[in-house]
Amino acid sequence: MKIAVLPGDGIGPEIVAEAVKVLNALGPKFDLETAPVGGAAYDVAGHPLPPATLELAKKADAILFGAVGDWKYDTLARELRPEQAILGLRKHLELFANFRPAICYDELTAASSLKAEIVGGLDILIIRELNGDIYFGQPRGIRTSELPLFKGAREGYDMMHYSEPEVERIGRVAFEAARKRSKKVCSVDKANVLETSQLWREVMIRVAKEYPDVELSHMYVDNAAMQLVKAPKAFDIVVTGNLFGDILSDEAAMLTGSIGMLPSASLDKNNKGLYEPSHGSAPDIAGKGIANPLATILSAAMMLRYSLAMPLEADRIEAAVQKVLSQGLRTADIFTEGTTKVSTVEMGDAVVAAL
Amino acid sequence: MKIAVLPGDGIGPEIVAEAVKVLNALGPKFDLETAPVGGAAYDVAGHPLPPATLELAKKADAILFGAVGDWKYDTLARELRPEQAILGLRKHLELFANFRPAICYDELTAASSLKAEIVGGLDILIIRELNGDIYFGQPRGIRTSELPLFKGAREGYDMMHYSEPEVERIGRVAFEAARKRSKKVCSVDKANVLETSQLWREVMIRVAKEYPDVELSHMYVDNAAMQLVKAPKAFDIVVTGNLFGDILSDEAAMLTGSIGMLPSASLDKNNKGLYEPSHGSAPDIAGKGIANPLATILSAAMMLRYSLAMPLEADRIEAAVQKVLSQGLRTADIFTEGTTKVSTVEMGDAVVAAL
Ligand SMILES: CC(C)[C@H](C(=O)O)[C@@H](O)C(=O)O
Ligand SMILES: CC(C)[C@H](C(=O)O)[C@@H](O)C(=O)O
Repeated sequence: MKIAVLPGDGIGPEIVAEAVKVLNALGPKFDLETAPVGGAAYDVAGHPLPPATLELAKKADAILFGAVGDWKYDTLARELRPEQAILGLRKHLELFANFRPAICYDELTAASSLKAEIVGGLDILIIRELNGDIYFGQPRGIRTSELPLFKGAREGYDMMHYSEPEVERIGRVAFEAARKRSKKVCSVDKANVLETSQLWREVMIRVAKEYPDVELSHMYVDNAAMQLVKAPKAFDIVVTGNLFGDILSDEAAMLTGSIGMLPSASLDKNNKGLYEPSHGSAPDIAGKGIANPLATILSAAMMLRYSLAMPLEADRIEAAVQKVLSQGLRTADIFTEGTTKVSTVEMGDAVVAAL
Repeated sequence: MKIAVLPGDGIGPEIVAEAVKVLNALGPKFDLETAPVGGAAYDVAGHPLPPATLELAKKADAILFGAVGDWKYDTLARELRPEQAILGLRKHLELFANFRPAICYDELTAASSLKAEIVGGLDILIIRELNGDIYFGQPRGIRTSELPLFKGAREGYDMMHYSEPEVERIGRVAFEAARKRSKKVCSVDKANVLETSQLWREVMIRVAKEYPDVELSHMYVDNAAMQLVKAPKAFDIVVTGNLFGDILSDEAAMLTGSIGMLPSASLDKNNKGLYEPSHGSAPDIAGKGIANPLATILSAAMMLRYSLAMPLEADRIEAAVQKVLSQGLRTADIFTEGTTKVSTVEMGDAVVAAL
């Protein structure tokens, strides 16, 4: 079982090291191969996603990804910036289904900016389409406007679009996932304004007919942004497009107050996937040994479950994480009075010990 | 001074009636003329924005708008649905600058789903561009895909775009507004992915040079959705495009827990404007006499300040609203133990008495 390990920038290398430590402690031998990605790859190879890294990702059974990005690359042309690596991997590997759980751990409810009764026990899953939408739509660019009102002025433009098969496949992913949860899917769009959303909604309704045991509801994206704040527990699975999913999944993650705990998976149609923490590269705390490795460790658990068919090992990791939380161990981001503050490495060691 | 009064659907007529009562109690005589809009207009004239209503709105100095929408119009073709009225008014009247304050009143902090220390004293202003972006971009529609991967399948598509003068004028509005507040503007975009945002950011940076006393920062929309949950008080003015503004302004409003209190203004370049509550038509409680009229009453105050050059009268209304809150009067949506529950009409009467 080959795993491509792409640590990336900022705290990426530190947190990935802990996840690798946990994987190695499980028993089964994984074939782990590391390659640079993001700014780190630009530094050594002149591109955030060098051909060798892409090749490795393609031939691996799964990818364990840290995080990319650092202010020092802000002046680069956009196509050379670290985040292009993640967009490139999603597109080249056809990783179209992004799973982003927003879970509020009992032990960490106090870290949320929301009241305990609003977020306590929160467990929702945002399923975001990753290969389509305005992220990759053509045409796009900056040109001279032809509009009568703005003729001659420069204008930026980007095409949003979704085709029927693209909506269908992410819809199926959501409905299948719902069968393993509470059988409720809320599809989020902006069908009162966008034609893309009108097609999206129509296709969701059609596909839902094949899943009569699953309840489908629809919500406009502005309302979803509100309801997530007001009553997040009313949701179970949310399925949405690439752009709305980018916004709502981050909002949902932040509701929990502990984004340092949240893993994510980006899957292709054969369940090959890229696994990464929901948080970013946090260059401000990189190298200090204080980053929270749990989101990455939990991403490794997701990897075992979804891509490597090792659900028992996934359970073991998740139980170990639960145990270190119960023991009161906390990295700085989730530390509260009365708990024990530990470093990145100490947290990783504690998870290994708890396995 | 001519004011077009467009009550609309659901609770619209009830809450607008209270705002009209307050305006009439001020002393100066306003020339108020009412016309149907939204579903109510469709019922009598076959269109949500009939020519006579649009004419009235055009010749008025300001528009007081209730809310539109009701489930019973859900089966209509999109161009006949109630919300087209509001899109039509924004476009025909060139109301490009939407002001949406998110204010958390001390008396109502407990109604928020966020902790008191996170939202207490919150006072931010979202400035949303209303005439451009993917809302009105061309081309848009549903067609047969030409993409190799999806050839022959139906696809929905919508063009996002912003031209330089459009960004410039909303930027100026934000920088001018910042001069009257804390001199901080956060521009929200998705410049790491969208060309439209790249132009947006570039223009914002250029225009900001003319306002050296105002501090401009930039944030990606996904991060803004998070930071609004985590630390909303870190923002002062947020300026953003039509689509991101739709999502973020609703999220920000809901943070306060009392969206029934929040007014909004949509202005053209001469400060003519449309004023409406930030909440919707709430058809589920329409006709029950329990809706909160304060957002509409506060919208009337904004109208006096921005469009009718009557700042003292605006202050009087706002002080009166503050007074009824201090008196403990609450409509059902903001009621908490220990306060006095009042009806829509009683709340309007109380504001008039407090003037
Ligand atoms: C880095 C950026 C391009 C990316 C996105 O917008 O998808 C990120 O925000 C994410 O959600 O993974
Ligand atoms: C009704 C709808 C078209 C509208 C919008 O998306 O602008 C509404 O959500 C708003 O924010 O005023």
